[in-house]
Amino acid sequence: MTDAARSGEFVQSLERGLAVIRAFDAEHPQLTLSEVARATGLTRAAARRFLLTLVELGYVHTDGRLFALRPRILDLGYAYLSSLSLPEVAQPHMEALVAQVHESCSVSVLDGDEVVYVARVPTKRIMTVGISVGTRFPAYATSMGRVLLAAQPADWLDDYLATAQLRQLTRRTITDPAKLRTTLNRIAGQGYAIVDQELEEGLRSLAAPIHGDDGAVIAAVNVSAHASRGTFDAIRRELLPPLLATARRIEEDLAAGSRR
Amino acid sequence: MTDAARSGEFVQSLERGLAVIRAFDAEHPQLTLSEVARATGLTRAAARRFLLTLVELGYVHTDGRLFALRPRILDLGYAYLSSLSLPEVAQPHMEALVAQVHESCSVSVLDGDEVVYVARVPTKRIMTVGISVGTRFPAYATSMGRVLLAAQPADWLDDYLATAQLRQLTRRTITDPAKLRTTLNRIAGQGYAIVDQELEEGLRSLAAPIHGDDGAVIAAVNVSAHASRGTFDAIRRELLPPLLATARRIEEDLAAGSRR
Repeated sequence: MTDAARSGEFVQSLERGLAVIRAFDAEHPQLTLSEVARATGLTRAAARRFLLTLVELGYVHTDGRLFALRPRILDLGYAYLSSLSLPEVAQPHMEALVAQVHESCSVSVLDGDEVVYVARVPTKRIMTVGISVGTRFPAYATSMGRVLLAAQPADWLDDYLATAQLRQLTRRTITDPAKLRTTLNRIAGQGYAIVDQELEEGLRSLAAPIHGDDGAVIAAVNVSAHASRGTFDAIRRELLPPLLATARRIEEDLAAGSRR
Repeated sequence: MTDAARSGEFVQSLERGLAVIRAFDAEHPQLTLSEVARATGLTRAAARRFLLTLVELGYVHTDGRLFALRPRILDLGYAYLSSLSLPEVAQPHMEALVAQVHESCSVSVLDGDEVVYVARVPTKRIMTVGISVGTRFPAYATSMGRVLLAAQPADWLDDYLATAQLRQLTRRTITDPAKLRTTLNRIAGQGYAIVDQELEEGLRSLAAPIHGDDGAVIAAVNVSAHASRGTFDAIRRELLPPLLATARRIEEDLAAGSRR
């Protein structure tokens, strides 16, 4: 049992209410009461109470039979995004980079073993899936994830490498923990990561760390390109210097902000 | 008293837990237990239970004294965004428009008397505030808001015009309800809205409605430009045709998707 549960302080109603919100997704934009009950494991009566409460609070819409989330739900994620100064500070520098290199630029943070996008300036789409703020990918197969993994404490990384499920997402994905460790060590030394078609065929990505005031890596910024843009070496030659310059500008602005 | 409250079905713990999440924002990215209690009106003991539950669920981080939201919070808003097919469908058409006209493009929906951004392809920043998915503006002073207001049922609009606080945001903002009604009628007839520096000095914006399969207006798409781009007429001449074409393409893809 966990600390909060042991002490009897865990608020189960909050956990259940958040589970009701998460029952909705791209495949299930509208749900009936029974479907919410099934998705969350709640009784129909309990699911009904949570749904009516969310309707009351303006987070859910219903026509009496079908339920759907309302835009007010974005306020919850927005509380997080606006609590980070990072996306706002990074955005103009990301826009300048995109204007210069004509490729999409993103900033993400590590959450467990995944990267989560917190800012993005897209150009043309080159991935098969759409990416937006909140999108997650497994850290090990992405350039931003590797930059963030490479900055973790040694014992955290030992645990990660011992337990992570390294799936073969493309022919090239590194799935051997020892090889991944070697790669992360090199990234820590050189200060950037390049991933060549390990998340998706045809997709190359470069990432650089963003350091906070205390020197710790707090996020990563990347730029991605279709393999048709040029050879691996050409992409590195063209995109790495402006990417590193962008990371430095973001760090300078973050430091200036925290001194205010 | 409301329906849910009357029937004793309202889950107050959920309301309180969501209030704890919303206590965090740009000015308050990190809060102590006492600060959360003060911001939410909860007792310290109650605030502690909610915070520990959110820590347990991975939504909040704490160092023992200070609490802060974690990226998992984005999943809640992401449940909403991914439940809309609109942002994903709209994104490539927005990107094509931005590549063509070199101005930022956004899609928003109406929530109460505000527009909420659900998709955005930025270029250079021209507003003094940063805009991202989840950002809200009062509907009456924005081009997307006017397109959405103009599509509301007559009795809803009567209520809105009778009660809305129309604030003078710039010298040009329409604050007279009768004049706003005339403007909305014209917008409904012409199928687009142009707002000339009513939300912010120097900012002009054009918006077009996005219709769902049943012909109802479900969202608005806009493009905005700094006043220095050209005269009001020049901006309309250059930006309106590609904007209307973009709205039509989004509608076609939405209709094709719903037929699948």
